[in-house]
Amino acid sequence: MAMLRSYVSGRWHTSSAEGAPLHDAVTGEEITRISSAGVDMAAALDHGRRTGGPALRELTFHQRGALLKALASYLREHREELYALSARSGATRTDSLIDVDGGIGVLFTYASKAKRELPNDTVYVDGALEPLSRGGTFVGRHIGTPLRGVAVQINAFNFPMWGPLEKFAPAFVAGVPSLIKPASQTAYITEKLVELMLASGLLPEGSVQLVSGSAGDLLDHLTAQDLVGFTGSASTAQLLRTHPAVIRSSVRFNAEADSLNCSILGPDATPGTPEFDLFVKQLVSEMTTKAGQKCTAIRRALVPAELLDDVAEAARARLAEVVIGNPANESVRMGALAGLEQREEVRRSLKTLLEAGEVVYGSPDTVEVVDADAERGAFLSPVLLKADPDRAQPHEVEAFGPVSTLLPYSGAAHAVELAARGAGSLVGSVVSYDTSFVREVVLGVAPWHGRLLVLDRDDAKESTGHGSPLPALVHGGPGRAGGGEEMGGIRGVLHHLQRTAVQGSPRVLTAVTGQWTAGAERTESAEHPFRKSLAELRIGDSVVAGPRTVTLEDVEHFASFTGDTFYAHMDEEAAAANPFFGGRVAHGYLVVSFAAGLFVSPEPGPVLANYGLDNLRFLTPTFPGDELTVTLTAKQITPREDQDYGEVRWDADLVNQKGESVAKYDVLTLVAKTR
Amino acid sequence: MAMLRSYVSGRWHTSSAEGAPLHDAVTGEEITRISSAGVDMAAALDHGRRTGGPALRELTFHQRGALLKALASYLREHREELYALSARSGATRTDSLIDVDGGIGVLFTYASKAKRELPNDTVYVDGALEPLSRGGTFVGRHIGTPLRGVAVQINAFNFPMWGPLEKFAPAFVAGVPSLIKPASQTAYITEKLVELMLASGLLPEGSVQLVSGSAGDLLDHLTAQDLVGFTGSASTAQLLRTHPAVIRSSVRFNAEADSLNCSILGPDATPGTPEFDLFVKQLVSEMTTKAGQKCTAIRRALVPAELLDDVAEAARARLAEVVIGNPANESVRMGALAGLEQREEVRRSLKTLLEAGEVVYGSPDTVEVVDADAERGAFLSPVLLKADPDRAQPHEVEAFGPVSTLLPYSGAAHAVELAARGAGSLVGSVVSYDTSFVREVVLGVAPWHGRLLVLDRDDAKESTGHGSPLPALVHGGPGRAGGGEEMGGIRGVLHHLQRTAVQGSPRVLTAVTGQWTAGAERTESAEHPFRKSLAELRIGDSVVAGPRTVTLEDVEHFASFTGDTFYAHMDEEAAAANPFFGGRVAHGYLVVSFAAGLFVSPEPGPVLANYGLDNLRFLTPTFPGDELTVTLTAKQITPREDQDYGEVRWDADLVNQKGESVAKYDVLTLVAKTR
Repeated sequence: MAMLRSYVSGRWHTSSAEGAPLHDAVTGEEITRISSAGVDMAAALDHGRRTGGPALRELTFHQRGALLKALASYLREHREELYALSARSGATRTDSLIDVDGGIGVLFTYASKAKRELPNDTVYVDGALEPLSRGGTFVGRHIGTPLRGVAVQINAFNFPMWGPLEKFAPAFVAGVPSLIKPASQTAYITEKLVELMLASGLLPEGSVQLVSGSAGDLLDHLTAQDLVGFTGSASTAQLLRTHPAVIRSSVRFNAEADSLNCSILGPDATPGTPEFDLFVKQLVSEMTTKAGQKCTAIRRALVPAELLDDVAEAARARLAEVVIGNPANESVRMGALAGLEQREEVRRSLKTLLEAGEVVYGSPDTVEVVDADAERGAFLSPVLLKADPDRAQPHEVEAFGPVSTLLPYSGAAHAVELAARGAGSLVGSVVSYDTSFVREVVLGVAPWHGRLLVLDRDDAKESTGHGSPLPALVHGGPGRAGGGEEMGGIRGVLHHLQRTAVQGSPRVLTAVTGQWTAGAERTESAEHPFRKSLAELRIGDSVVAGPRTVTLEDVEHFASFTGDTFYAHMDEEAAAANPFFGGRVAHGYLVVSFAAGLFVSPEPGPVLANYGLDNLRFLTPTFPGDELTVTLTAKQITPREDQDYGEVRWDADLVNQKGESVAKYDVLTLVAKTR
Repeated sequence: MAMLRSYVSGRWHTSSAEGAPLHDAVTGEEITRISSAGVDMAAALDHGRRTGGPALRELTFHQRGALLKALASYLREHREELYALSARSGATRTDSLIDVDGGIGVLFTYASKAKRELPNDTVYVDGALEPLSRGGTFVGRHIGTPLRGVAVQINAFNFPMWGPLEKFAPAFVAGVPSLIKPASQTAYITEKLVELMLASGLLPEGSVQLVSGSAGDLLDHLTAQDLVGFTGSASTAQLLRTHPAVIRSSVRFNAEADSLNCSILGPDATPGTPEFDLFVKQLVSEMTTKAGQKCTAIRRALVPAELLDDVAEAARARLAEVVIGNPANESVRMGALAGLEQREEVRRSLKTLLEAGEVVYGSPDTVEVVDADAERGAFLSPVLLKADPDRAQPHEVEAFGPVSTLLPYSGAAHAVELAARGAGSLVGSVVSYDTSFVREVVLGVAPWHGRLLVLDRDDAKESTGHGSPLPALVHGGPGRAGGGEEMGGIRGVLHHLQRTAVQGSPRVLTAVTGQWTAGAERTESAEHPFRKSLAELRIGDSVVAGPRTVTLEDVEHFASFTGDTFYAHMDEEAAAANPFFGGRVAHGYLVVSFAAGLFVSPEPGPVLANYGLDNLRFLTPTFPGDELTVTLTAKQITPREDQDYGEVRWDADLVNQKGESVAKYDVLTLVAKTR
């Protein structure tokens, strides 16, 4: 590959410009060249909007999720091609696993979340119905619909697989096409990724595009319906965020930028405790994984002053065991930085950091390597510093490599204060087994963090560690960290949807959301709705059953049968003294059981099972002699893409002879697609 | 009042500068002067951070809500003082109601939402528990904690009461202090509001501050923990959004800016239908209320081409009935604009709009007024235009006064396309009784709107109208409208909290969130937890009860007792054919009823009632002969501020003899605070 390609407007584009060289991080040899010259950025955005967007919006959330799952499986089969390229960026096999398998894992998680947490529909319903009027003819609800633009995803060099995929997955599920612009240094890995994504044949044309090389005038063409997701330096983030087109159209702009992440050792975690060892082990691991080139790596290790020497000593011993060199060599635990320029940048940052501290381990200038040339390859020794916590540098200078600084603190409040001096971080960790220390520190530093890990003897074995963002949790942090939020499960999908409050009558809300809204018409037909398959059932189909009188004998019988002899059911005098009842009442479980007896259709049919109840509220007590009538209405229908059945959510409204609501709840059933 | 005061750093400040004059909109006479010269902005922010923030954070969400409710009542008692000042801004009594009572209404809604939708705690738990590991020792959950800065609220002149209050209420509930900076023209009303707020004696010192006059260097002192909420012009929004301090620290910036809101008449709504009349009536009302000075007013009235003349004629007739003049005169339906400058600005915009259209009603230059001087007061006739929808002006020029433009369209798709040309609006409305038209248009225009109203014969009587943002619904729109989101119920509170993903063991999550997390320790004591009052009960207190064997006789008995003879309980052969059961199973209602019989403590005591169940899921079928054991654990305790009881949410886990979970659910009870 002499020149990396872009994939835009439905075809691969190879620039005819000379381009800039990209080098192997280990050997220094030229791998390929990169240039986006000649790419028509406006046309690419337009292609995404006119081709990718409409194709995605024809699919439901579940259908997009199913494609994502298939894509993840496809990529997993082709992992080896990606590992091979990944090694050229200086990554060890373990580093590649994080990037490659981590990225594929994000796809699997989003596929699963789409299926479990989103409707099998094209409209997302956000939050509860808002009653806006006494009479109930005017109600409100929020919906989410996909933005009609393109998600422009500008990624950093350190995760050429995971970076694009963690942005692509939520956009895809949302129904918004992606345009991926990788950082140059490792763009050859992203190019291969996109090649595989396209080769899978799974993705609608226009739903993913790639620009290899500079963004050129890409941002000039943004409109209010486009989004920008950026990962990289704070200075670039500021430049992009103030781009005239971004500002003019209030373009949704999400940034992950610099972060001086801290890890805090609890005073209880003295040498000999599991937490002491966990802290040191994690610190060294965060310094050396990906050669410390992670936005989430620990830059500031906050340690009780009295434990500083112990930690320094233990870390020194562990660091001394780290073998550095050619990642292809199996003994190697830490590979190279992404390039010689990165190494120079880290050395410059180290120089600044050393103004406020001293070296505990390692050297900025010399490093012993195996199976490689320490100068031609971008190798650097892990460098652990210790510094005066009152100085500014440790809290402000991010050396983006295998570098961390030990900082002593004097108590929980001091630790919180020091953590806050990072002015906003992606992640922090607390390593302690003392829950009162943990609670104080976690709640104290939370406003400055997007994610906090508490590591201790209980979770250590299963913990994914300080440095690993997880698709179910938000990734991003306030302030210096960019103020962004990515992933976070369905939150990342919602970021790509416009939230709109819709106000109208229940009839209108039902039509717009595809979910039956209390107050809208119901359809009662001769056929019981439980006799209808998903193919036949319609939103609003309902059955009214009853009345059934609840007698005192029923109450007493139910009490003796179930053992629920709570006084409010059994003792008139005591019940009369209860502030809510004023006399003996029927069991809540009894009235919903009777309701089921009323609305059930007993013979075998499309309704396969009742798998649960939601939001059951008892609103009016049922007294002996009351007559109950129940109305059950099909509220939401969710066919499963991969089964011959789906879920039906029924609105249950149980009223007494005065028309008062006794109980309201949702009944959840599994129903066959066909009879 | 010769000079409006600011309230900063705990005291009233009167500037000694000359200041700028503020005029009565009706008579033109000088009311007062305004200047913020001499206000130490850095000190004010610091006061909010050091005094207001900590005081607010000591209160729970419910306590803050209760203060808000008391404040709302206090302000309601002092409404007349505010009405009197409001009239000087040109507002009729109806206009004042919207501003004054509307603002007070926002406080009441937030007070109520805080109580019903937030925990009585200082930490907000966001979303479900995220299982992160197979063994369950490592889990994640998102929490929300108040930002440690100040919410700087920069408001527009048109709603000097509602504007500050709709920003203040969610900030206050969140625990974040407010610094209010009103627009100068009507700042004398906001000054009175803040004076009353302080006089109420309800608000912790530092939780509200006021800067009357220019913002000076206020923004220079912002940090990552502060927020800015702005309402005003798009050009000012862009200036503030790119302020170096805002960009440097990724300050949360929320803007409500220009908006060319549309109202769309459905083709079904021909003359003689209720919807035709509703459309015309609403159009005229939106033009004349507040003299059209509402960010949410209808600027573009999209009408089926064939109905344009009918609409024009009907609107003309209604507009002719609008009496304009001194708002103190009871016959007057439309008062003055906020000032002569505003009138000039509207006239300039009208000139541009007239390049693309013509006048249907009214005149930019002459107006007949009662009880006032049409030139000294800022009076303007309502002006209805009609224009070519293909021209840019009607979609881009917002005449911020009693001005609207009729635009013909040719079909639903065309209407959607024209609506989108507003490039992002706060609100749109659709007036039609045809649900398929409504669904197509609402889902089509949703990505460009923050709010959409569907008006028809069903909701007209109770509808609050196109122009009214409601505290339960989001206010704000994408693109040109600023890309912001305010209110939206609890969403507006969350905007002031930092969301942080916390990862750890269930024990740690329990300690941090104050809610029991499955997998954390339970406390079983000799005393049944139902015997404990809120004062005694602790998170994690639990009872294990059972086993109880479920027999075939139980199942048959329950079926005949309740009438629930679903085949899966009654017919071995049919049940065996069911894909989920493979044989006769017990009713879900039976097993939860038995569980209640196991865990109940029958005698009168602190547990007053079971008011509901949440998230009930049946996980494993119960077969005749199975033995059930239930564990009930106190999960969340919510004392009510205004009652002698509170809510306790219990985790119920029902398992069979193999240890398999048969059902999991939350049991909701009301429990007395003391025995």
